[in-house]
Amino acid sequence: MIDHPLLFAADALATLVFATTGALVASRKELDVFGFMWFAAITGVGGGTLRDLLLDVPVFWIENPFPLALCLGIAVVLHFTAHLVQSRMVLILWLDCFGLGFAAIAGTLKALDQGVAGLVAVIMGVFSGTVGGILRDTLGQEPSIILRREIYVTAAALGASATVLIAAAGESRLAAAATGFALVFALRGAALLRNLTLPGFRSRKGRDYP
Amino acid sequence: MIDHPLLFAADALATLVFATTGALVASRKELDVFGFMWFAAITGVGGGTLRDLLLDVPVFWIENPFPLALCLGIAVVLHFTAHLVQSRMVLILWLDCFGLGFAAIAGTLKALDQGVAGLVAVIMGVFSGTVGGILRDTLGQEPSIILRREIYVTAAALGASATVLIAAAGESRLAAAATGFALVFALRGAALLRNLTLPGFRSRKGRDYP
Amino acid sequence: MIDHPLLFAADALATLVFATTGALVASRKELDVFGFMWFAAITGVGGGTLRDLLLDVPVFWIENPFPLALCLGIAVVLHFTAHLVQSRMVLILWLDCFGLGFAAIAGTLKALDQGVAGLVAVIMGVFSGTVGGILRDTLGQEPSIILRREIYVTAAALGASATVLIAAAGESRLAAAATGFALVFALRGAALLRNLTLPGFRSRKGRDYP
Repeated sequence: MIDHPLLFAADALATLVFATTGALVASRKELDVFGFMWFAAITGVGGGTLRDLLLDVPVFWIENPFPLALCLGIAVVLHFTAHLVQSRMVLILWLDCFGLGFAAIAGTLKALDQGVAGLVAVIMGVFSGTVGGILRDTLGQEPSIILRREIYVTAAALGASATVLIAAAGESRLAAAATGFALVFALRGAALLRNLTLPGFRSRKGRDYP
Repeated sequence: MIDHPLLFAADALATLVFATTGALVASRKELDVFGFMWFAAITGVGGGTLRDLLLDVPVFWIENPFPLALCLGIAVVLHFTAHLVQSRMVLILWLDCFGLGFAAIAGTLKALDQGVAGLVAVIMGVFSGTVGGILRDTLGQEPSIILRREIYVTAAALGASATVLIAAAGESRLAAAATGFALVFALRGAALLRNLTLPGFRSRKGRDYP
Repeated sequence: MIDHPLLFAADALATLVFATTGALVASRKELDVFGFMWFAAITGVGGGTLRDLLLDVPVFWIENPFPLALCLGIAVVLHFTAHLVQSRMVLILWLDCFGLGFAAIAGTLKALDQGVAGLVAVIMGVFSGTVGGILRDTLGQEPSIILRREIYVTAAALGASATVLIAAAGESRLAAAATGFALVFALRGAALLRNLTLPGFRSRKGRDYP
């Protein structure tokens, strides 16, 4: 799927960013270098792994372990330099915003290539972009991104939906992907800049039916 | 497997009930509508998804996304009406009792259709009925059904075992399924009505061997 | 893969030990006998299950449910005798040390048999040895082995790496496996005896770049 050098670089960057957010959890728990590798790997490749298992295609890092090697490599580097990175959380958040968009749209396209229904392709996009982070938070016993009302899953879902709709309308893959990516990036970026959230469910008393 | 209209309706109802219990976790966390969808989907289709992955058959909602669409639809509805539903927990518990029985027995039959050993079919029934709820509780960071001593896993396991034994004895699928379902429903229902539990392990001091 | 009676016995012992650590979580939570079975099963077969799903080979306990039956059997026994076992934690830790080594190296060899890259085989070995325990701790809502700085994942990773390197150097499977197992056992055993840990990441203030 990824044969253009620019796409290859973007894919590697998205993996590195996710792996970095995983390694930073390991740094907060003050783990050893193998703990850094563990968290970097599950965060970096976890979402795509679930997508491939569900689609019943070969798991991407088993076919070609390069993304896995990237995760392990950045984990070793960060074991010695995490304190430098921690002081740059704003940069990390913006890189993660890029990673979310790239992973979600790439996952959507991979699912469409398998001929699944549009709704399923959207779900695969959402999983590709968010499951790594959810595994990271669950295994790291930190508050999960899925339990915050930030626009995160939302951005992935809307961007993936745009990609599916535009592709279904007969536009080129490139147009569909670019629009979807731009939408994820814009929504998540707006949330970062302005602290935007969707309205949450507000607990109310039920009406007193008898 | 499901071609009779009544079975189709029962399957849809079981999915809706599980999805509802997922959406109610999202409501307690005061999440946005995409958070409702997430929890409704993993609770509604999580157990059957693991069953299909383990059996190496196509994941049911990827072949036909109707159950997934049901989960997402009820999530949107509940985002606006959860306060009405929360005040009806007793009804929910009984519907969940029905959903547990239906999912456990349908999962057992699907596994038997793959020609697995009886013990494996029972496990698949238990997974189909309970894994959605366990994912819901783990990702929602709530006390897990698996850590309570309620009769829940127990009911699924005994009902699935009954189905396997009756089918092995040469009785019809329908008789096996109906008996298994009745057993799950009766056990879980008795637990709801009477607060029944099995005896739990009680911590004692070990004997003082040297 | 396992046709020698001694290997068969070692495999059964490794499964029993993992299942025992799972049942002990159930005993600390004072669960009923089905709760014991649940935790024994996910701990005993969880790691190998994920390995088989990722490698896209039939899940081992679905092909032959004997290891699953072992887990369920020991769970029933421990539901009545856990207090005797709890007072022997040192013995359990050493048996677990054996189980870790056996599972990690057996998982590595199974992955190599599928022709995957060496790095992937190492990861499969680590997963086989540790994922059961991580599922146990996550679902049991206990502090996870992955969040402690004990030498555990580390031992599995280094032993699996040794096995891959020795096999790649053209030595026999037996030599590769024996060396890898000895390394896991020695590292984990040294950690048990001496409370060894690798240096963890220490939080420091980032340098004040502008």
